[in-house]
Amino acid sequence: MPTRKMTSFVLPVPVTADKPSLQDNTADLDRLRHALRGQLPDSRPLEIPFARIVPLCRRFRQVGFSGVALVNDLPDKWVLADFLPAWPDQLPAMALDLGTTHLEAILVDLLTGQVLSAAGCENSQIEYGADILSRIHQATSARRQMREVADLSFIDPGLAVLQQSIVTCINGLIAELASGSGVATSDIRALSVSGNTTMAHLLLGLDPFHICREPYIPMANVVDSMEGRELGLILHDSAPVWIMPSIGSYFGGDLISGILASGLAATEQTRMLIDVGTNAEVVLGNRDWLIACAGAAGPALEGGVARMGMRAAPGAIDFVSLDPETYALEVRTIGGAPARGLCGSGLIDLVASLYLARIIDIRGKFRDPDQDSDPRRSAFMRERVVVRDGQRAFVVVTARNGLMPREPGTQGMEAPVSLEPGMAEERLAGAAMVSETGADDEVLLEQIDLDAMIRSKAAMYAVLATLVGQVGLAFSDLAEICVAGAFGNHINPRRAITLGMLPDLDLSVYRAIGNSSLQGAEQVLLSRSARQECLDIVSKITYVELNVNQDFMNRFSGARFIPHTDPSLFPSVPLFGEEKR
Amino acid sequence: MPTRKMTSFVLPVPVTADKPSLQDNTADLDRLRHALRGQLPDSRPLEIPFARIVPLCRRFRQVGFSGVALVNDLPDKWVLADFLPAWPDQLPAMALDLGTTHLEAILVDLLTGQVLSAAGCENSQIEYGADILSRIHQATSARRQMREVADLSFIDPGLAVLQQSIVTCINGLIAELASGSGVATSDIRALSVSGNTTMAHLLLGLDPFHICREPYIPMANVVDSMEGRELGLILHDSAPVWIMPSIGSYFGGDLISGILASGLAATEQTRMLIDVGTNAEVVLGNRDWLIACAGAAGPALEGGVARMGMRAAPGAIDFVSLDPETYALEVRTIGGAPARGLCGSGLIDLVASLYLARIIDIRGKFRDPDQDSDPRRSAFMRERVVVRDGQRAFVVVTARNGLMPREPGTQGMEAPVSLEPGMAEERLAGAAMVSETGADDEVLLEQIDLDAMIRSKAAMYAVLATLVGQVGLAFSDLAEICVAGAFGNHINPRRAITLGMLPDLDLSVYRAIGNSSLQGAEQVLLSRSARQECLDIVSKITYVELNVNQDFMNRFSGARFIPHTDPSLFPSVPLFGEEKR
Repeated sequence: MPTRKMTSFVLPVPVTADKPSLQDNTADLDRLRHALRGQLPDSRPLEIPFARIVPLCRRFRQVGFSGVALVNDLPDKWVLADFLPAWPDQLPAMALDLGTTHLEAILVDLLTGQVLSAAGCENSQIEYGADILSRIHQATSARRQMREVADLSFIDPGLAVLQQSIVTCINGLIAELASGSGVATSDIRALSVSGNTTMAHLLLGLDPFHICREPYIPMANVVDSMEGRELGLILHDSAPVWIMPSIGSYFGGDLISGILASGLAATEQTRMLIDVGTNAEVVLGNRDWLIACAGAAGPALEGGVARMGMRAAPGAIDFVSLDPETYALEVRTIGGAPARGLCGSGLIDLVASLYLARIIDIRGKFRDPDQDSDPRRSAFMRERVVVRDGQRAFVVVTARNGLMPREPGTQGMEAPVSLEPGMAEERLAGAAMVSETGADDEVLLEQIDLDAMIRSKAAMYAVLATLVGQVGLAFSDLAEICVAGAFGNHINPRRAITLGMLPDLDLSVYRAIGNSSLQGAEQVLLSRSARQECLDIVSKITYVELNVNQDFMNRFSGARFIPHTDPSLFPSVPLFGEEKR
Repeated sequence: MPTRKMTSFVLPVPVTADKPSLQDNTADLDRLRHALRGQLPDSRPLEIPFARIVPLCRRFRQVGFSGVALVNDLPDKWVLADFLPAWPDQLPAMALDLGTTHLEAILVDLLTGQVLSAAGCENSQIEYGADILSRIHQATSARRQMREVADLSFIDPGLAVLQQSIVTCINGLIAELASGSGVATSDIRALSVSGNTTMAHLLLGLDPFHICREPYIPMANVVDSMEGRELGLILHDSAPVWIMPSIGSYFGGDLISGILASGLAATEQTRMLIDVGTNAEVVLGNRDWLIACAGAAGPALEGGVARMGMRAAPGAIDFVSLDPETYALEVRTIGGAPARGLCGSGLIDLVASLYLARIIDIRGKFRDPDQDSDPRRSAFMRERVVVRDGQRAFVVVTARNGLMPREPGTQGMEAPVSLEPGMAEERLAGAAMVSETGADDEVLLEQIDLDAMIRSKAAMYAVLATLVGQVGLAFSDLAEICVAGAFGNHINPRRAITLGMLPDLDLSVYRAIGNSSLQGAEQVLLSRSARQECLDIVSKITYVELNVNQDFMNRFSGARFIPHTDPSLFPSVPLFGEEKR
């Protein structure tokens, strides 16, 4: 990640002017403007919003024409926002990852870059629709009845409800962050928001009607900063709001943040960024060029397809291991909570383990326990591979084991619970002590889930290969592959390689970069070059549409085996039947 | 007046963009911005206000991504205000002279410069105070009780009332102008306002508290343009409002307009601008330098001092002549209405005539009729010079002649009515036919009025002489003297020279330039260089404070005779007792 000179979104500027006299009868505002102009680091125009004139002049006079101006550092201008009697102790600003399901925010001190507090919450719009498409549907309830919108300023009542909902939700986070660091909400001087294109539309009250209709056109990708009060946010009245720009309907500001946070566009080396959400969004490039695409690779990994799939939340199985010799099965849930399903990383672990243990074949199909020559595996399979609705399924957690025990003195995230065959019953009493709540349904992996998983991993690999091929490179040319988000934090690249989902490279090439959406938002608060880079990225990135790409379709077909129809692409993955473990 | 290239405040720009497709899925706003950017004449940043995004994008899409953008041409940026389906027939904008007593406005077509309609009305704030000081008093009713304003955004209720009053008043003019040229008020795309410093404060809601308190500091002289809706005006929502900048508490935007309209700052020749209102405001200069001052020379000329003085309005005597041989007295009233008093030009005419007819002496004192050796003059004086309250006074119009007859077929403004001695009674019947209303009190010029007049004319001459002396020039170095406003339109420079009020120069040097406050406002609507010139004028003008100027006081003393203590300064004025007429 590049180190940037701190040039915060709001700049405090000490200003001292002569006091007015008969010999110097300049007006208060002109006196302030003139004195400040001389202190600004460059010649960008200085704007003073009309609504700020009275309070600014009053304060300037009150403090004897000497104090500290707060100036918003916008791409084409300086905007005088406030005037303080003295140098502030801190200058809080908020960075927000505006996710479809979850919001994460931090309060950052613009003077030091220090994080003052952090908070997160569920996206309150979930009440109106779990996914993007259903939210767009809700936001265009009335709009969809119209062929053309006669009143140009028309705001769909459905959109107004969603906008109000998310504004209230963000205001809740603002209040939480403020109280968490002992400041008033009106002391928060700036906000940056990193979200996908639709979430940005729903926050700004922009019509998302065409986002999901061919040719998939957002109303706006890049918007000038507005003031917090224009959005109804309880920040300082003149707090500038930076909305991370988008590239298109399916490539949002959250990914621009990812590019910022990974430093992808800042180095000479060519690197790759993978962000798996509902889509797999992938960017390849360096400081000279950027190429990106998004493909529907994610659903199986995020709860959209697999019946027992879920997002990385408490109760999600995020780690699975199955010893191919002893058939000892270990699973771990997030927060140590009772297992409710499998998140992406758990699913990858599980399917890779089933492949290595030869429970499934290279097509991702369950093998017949009765055809197995290994008696121990055969016994294990008879216990775990059941038939439901005429289809084979693997029992990850048995029904009465739905309550997972927490090991004393360990963190749920870090302490895999060994569930060797036959041990389940012994654990039951202890498990029940942990929690009486939580579903005690079994956690199953069905054939239909496996099939979806194979499609997803094939799509993922095809996306990566197509993108790399598009610029005439090979995977081995990549200096680094950054994997963003919860997926990146939880996934075991070794297992993903085993499945043929990620290219077979040295594990040191892979780097989990965490919540890069939030990190990018934080960077634009602290650095002008980050703010400028956002805009540069938008203008230089090339977006490859995969839905109409024949190369992608060919690669997709080739990738629908474990690890691949061409095993030479995955030399480190044992071929079925040749495992050493 | 300089001819300027038309670069209107709002620029229509034809924009045609490719339609969106799968191959070109740029967002609507970005498509519009990009296509427009390429058509703009320079690289100033293009700003798109947040509140305009939705209607702009809707319209852009509705018209098939091709039409005409309306872009506000502000000093440091372009602001996208609207998008039209086709080239407009006209682009109305409003220029406003925001006077303390009177508002004058025109609607101008920004495409052609043509005036579409005109309107005027009394300043509705008169209800709350006739002059600037009483309005400031009203606007600071609550403010004056506070030592310091704790709530920085505090708006004095008195100020709010005055602001609301003037906004309503302007909205009335907007409606009148719009209906006068058959457009909707929301079709008016820009506004420029030219007014004195206090009027600008009262319109913008700025606190005028310090304007009238030493050292006389306005809250703001130069403000960035705001949108009409921010002021509650019923123009187009995004109509930019240009407030003509001020120089100080007693040197307002109306005079900057005068400098613009006179072209004072635009030529190599040194010229002078005289604007007589409550103060005499005088500017001297050329394209390299400008020097200005304001002196309390005006009151006697505007109704503030002379008991029978009044502003140039219907019923004001604006022309007087007295034949020094026959003693035939002619007076004319504005609009041919019954005489109610004397406006500045009438007063100057009268006093100059009285001097030339030897009714008053060089000190401006009435001569004793009984001491006069000329029997005809002695008879005239005995009829006209009366004693009231122990002081001599001249009867300009006798009581029963208060109703002035209107000559059939003539304009009141252009048809002096001859009132030779003895004719008054014969005219009475006809005069009564014109109007039964109007005061029929006599119109008197009292000694006290004469004394005030002498002080005013002395102040005026001293202001002009001091200013010219300040830069080491003589009056004969001036290429032109522009006289602004009603005063300039009505005054007879010959008579003002006779009094020693204006320097004794060839009459061709004097030019009446009319309502230069309105003309300047019109110019900024039509020309970017005029807008820039306003700001340049503010930064380059030198303001001379006369109240603390000894040179001025000396010149003032010397000028308290008719025409002057040094008659050699006025070679064209007959010395008392030597008149040829």
